[in-house]
Amino acid sequence: MTDQSAFAAWGAAAELEEGLALTPKFDADGLITAVATDASSGDVLMVAHMNAQALQKTIATGEAWYFSRSRRALWKKGETSGHTQRVVEMRIDCDQDAVWIKVEQAVAACHTGRRSCFYRTVPMGKSGAAKLEFRDERVFDPKAAYRK
Amino acid sequence: MTDQSAFAAWGAAAELEEGLALTPKFDADGLITAVATDASSGDVLMVAHMNAQALQKTIATGEAWYFSRSRRALWKKGETSGHTQRVVEMRIDCDQDAVWIKVEQAVAACHTGRRSCFYRTVPMGKSGAAKLEFRDERVFDPKAAYRK
Repeated sequence: MTDQSAFAAWGAAAELEEGLALTPKFDADGLITAVATDASSGDVLMVAHMNAQALQKTIATGEAWYFSRSRRALWKKGETSGHTQRVVEMRIDCDQDAVWIKVEQAVAACHTGRRSCFYRTVPMGKSGAAKLEFRDERVFDPKAAYRK
Repeated sequence: MTDQSAFAAWGAAAELEEGLALTPKFDADGLITAVATDASSGDVLMVAHMNAQALQKTIATGEAWYFSRSRRALWKKGETSGHTQRVVEMRIDCDQDAVWIKVEQAVAACHTGRRSCFYRTVPMGKSGAAKLEFRDERVFDPKAAYRK
């Protein structure tokens, strides 16, 4: 689906896990999972996906790029809202199918107006019908931010 | 693929994002993404997947359960190694296709012996051929832990 030739093909488990080569294991849709955390608070801000081009652009520019599965499009975080993410550090996991980026987040990560997309808790010890609890307030007005 | 009837079907975006009902948006394989962070340090320990049953069991027991895509099996974290995860808090994201769990991790999360699966950094500003750098030492011997 996407050009993955910028990265070497992934090899045996030992090489994936203990090697020094970045060989991302893109899935059938050409994507890996990307988790962005706030470099200061450590909070998880969002979970999204990167294709090879998004990963390349993120590494090259130091700003977070993703691939939108719903829009089928490369996407620079904050391109509309201005709520960009400067990448302080990028890590890759053992089997190289997920990256963790620690970012300096401008304003807020979530399109709903909250700092993090994870603004609701799931009460533990309850059944699936448990009520979610809101934890984070809006820090911007999404109607205004996406009006442009 | 799995029984999702324990959770209500997901509705319109407004309800997903602003509602109080837990309506996880399982993908075509019946999975949502789960990110586990260390409740003390805030470090991302691992990224994995949960099906409806894993999510239910995690909520009910307060210990992390996942679904292994490679083994096609429900899996209690630490069932072989003893390296269990006690869930301190669970959060769900705006579109309800990812959960974030803050956990108390016994010993280490990664099967390679490191505390976190994200033990290598990707140098920024380089091309895809950049060399990874190891950051975390092993805290247990994987050969011994999985010998049982």
